[in-house]
Amino acid sequence: MPAPTLADSVRLADDGVHILDRRVFPARREWVRCAGVEDVAKAIEDMVTQSSGPYFAALWGMVLAAREAVERPDPLAHVQAAGARLIATRRTNNHIGTAVRTVLSRMDSSDLVGSALAGAREGDRRYRDRSRALGEHTATLLPDNASLLTHCWADLYLVGLVDALRAAGKSFTVHCTETRPYLQGAKLTATTLAEMGVDTTLITDGMGAAVLADGRIDALVTAADRVTLDGHVVNKVGTLGLAVAAHTFGVPFLAMVQAPDRAAPTAADVPIEYRNGAEVLTAAGVTEPGIRGLYPAFDITPPRFVSTVVTDSGAFDPTGLADYPQEEP
Amino acid sequence: MPAPTLADSVRLADDGVHILDRRVFPARREWVRCAGVEDVAKAIEDMVTQSSGPYFAALWGMVLAAREAVERPDPLAHVQAAGARLIATRRTNNHIGTAVRTVLSRMDSSDLVGSALAGAREGDRRYRDRSRALGEHTATLLPDNASLLTHCWADLYLVGLVDALRAAGKSFTVHCTETRPYLQGAKLTATTLAEMGVDTTLITDGMGAAVLADGRIDALVTAADRVTLDGHVVNKVGTLGLAVAAHTFGVPFLAMVQAPDRAAPTAADVPIEYRNGAEVLTAAGVTEPGIRGLYPAFDITPPRFVSTVVTDSGAFDPTGLADYPQEEP
Repeated sequence: MPAPTLADSVRLADDGVHILDRRVFPARREWVRCAGVEDVAKAIEDMVTQSSGPYFAALWGMVLAAREAVERPDPLAHVQAAGARLIATRRTNNHIGTAVRTVLSRMDSSDLVGSALAGAREGDRRYRDRSRALGEHTATLLPDNASLLTHCWADLYLVGLVDALRAAGKSFTVHCTETRPYLQGAKLTATTLAEMGVDTTLITDGMGAAVLADGRIDALVTAADRVTLDGHVVNKVGTLGLAVAAHTFGVPFLAMVQAPDRAAPTAADVPIEYRNGAEVLTAAGVTEPGIRGLYPAFDITPPRFVSTVVTDSGAFDPTGLADYPQEEP
Repeated sequence: MPAPTLADSVRLADDGVHILDRRVFPARREWVRCAGVEDVAKAIEDMVTQSSGPYFAALWGMVLAAREAVERPDPLAHVQAAGARLIATRRTNNHIGTAVRTVLSRMDSSDLVGSALAGAREGDRRYRDRSRALGEHTATLLPDNASLLTHCWADLYLVGLVDALRAAGKSFTVHCTETRPYLQGAKLTATTLAEMGVDTTLITDGMGAAVLADGRIDALVTAADRVTLDGHVVNKVGTLGLAVAAHTFGVPFLAMVQAPDRAAPTAADVPIEYRNGAEVLTAAGVTEPGIRGLYPAFDITPPRFVSTVVTDSGAFDPTGLADYPQEEP
């Protein structure tokens, strides 16, 4: 079976970085061309791509920055400013920072573009390897014939999990929430699972507790944008409600993350991005005056509602994340 | 301040029953004309109106049935069949049955239409009186400056609550969930609150736990389609998740219902309506093959997650509903 569309949705070309527009996928398969690093930053801010998309966009965006830098009086200053610009796009997920640092640390002023390209390629390979490992570790924790509930779009972690469950000969089905206001669950998760031939059921966000209460779900499995060292899971808003309901009704919650964030000892260290409340109104088609929208993009699930944090180095109790091995810089 | 649009959205006229189309409100203010009782039944099934709308539609629909019956060989059989047809439209809420029985019990074969009209008027008045009483009892339980969270559309109960809070000189604000897949919260609740000049904030369904956890909500207040005698609250799907989160984070949950349902001793006595899963797909704009939708229209919140059931006779502990006074037939 070919890889799903979204597994290869950010590409470097001679004329820039091409990013599949997740805002209109799957209805339309359109690519946004980013000629320079500023275009890449804007595309991330505008949510042309999300989930692991910004990581790849930042990797290849740094190659664009290197191409631009060779024309500048101070090339190093340009690539560093470009990295800072990319990191500032979205604050809650720290993959963008990892991507920027990976490329910057490999950059060599004697061959700026070549070394940036090598760094980006290494970052690309490493992210895919780690996602695959994460999927494999998660698959070992799930029984055969598991009925899973997921929220938002776990991207390559989910693809890795599907591949690993199949490699292990395990059957499974997935319920996914539509994930308002952007409908990532309906548009990205459900579509990708269907592309991969997975038995897929879509529910609205408000139905999560009902399906967790009625016994039809064996495990809640989501990605995490960040996991703090003390086991708080930061992920798409809505995760907290599902985690609390799963805990209440005895369903395990597995949170997938490549690694806990050593820079975030606890939840207070993670800034929660509040997006423009008007996006909530627009998504609902509300145009009456006098109604305000509120849009926290993420929520924080305390460790008491998290059964297991699965990383690329295996499963951890949320209270035992300090044991995660020190990462490469 | 004039009454909000939705407080008078089902009207009897010479040419039938006119029902404001809540599927397109507030973007358009269109009325569906139902020439006969079968049209009324279809309109309820098609969700032209919902919440307390079907109660009023059934009252006035029974007047149409009486008008039709005078042409029939067995008028009584016709009105009884019409009542059964209306009751069969939607199974979870039992207001339709109350409306039908109210009109049938007043019907007099010597003046079928006149007696049906009198019965419908009495049913209309009684429902409004009880909703007002319910709002008043709920308002006494809320502090000044309360920040409320509601889900779906509590209809005349919510209007009664707003009126009662104001009469009591209490300030308040309301967060409401958009309530997918039909967006009743965004389209009906938020619009009506804005019409009434209430400080209104819209969130998506998945944000409920986040706002309950962060301390900005003082009480979760919803209507209930039914409350069983042992304190299970049956309401729009999504209520359970909010109730579990409210319980977890120490926010009281007040469920408003005119009266508990003596015909439903426990949750097993309430059939949950499963609507066509395709409606979930359509609402999300998903057209990819291989994705199934699931659409439980209601969920059931066990009494341990309910703080108070407020009725037209005052507040009850969910375990003490047997003390609710016997209703009129």
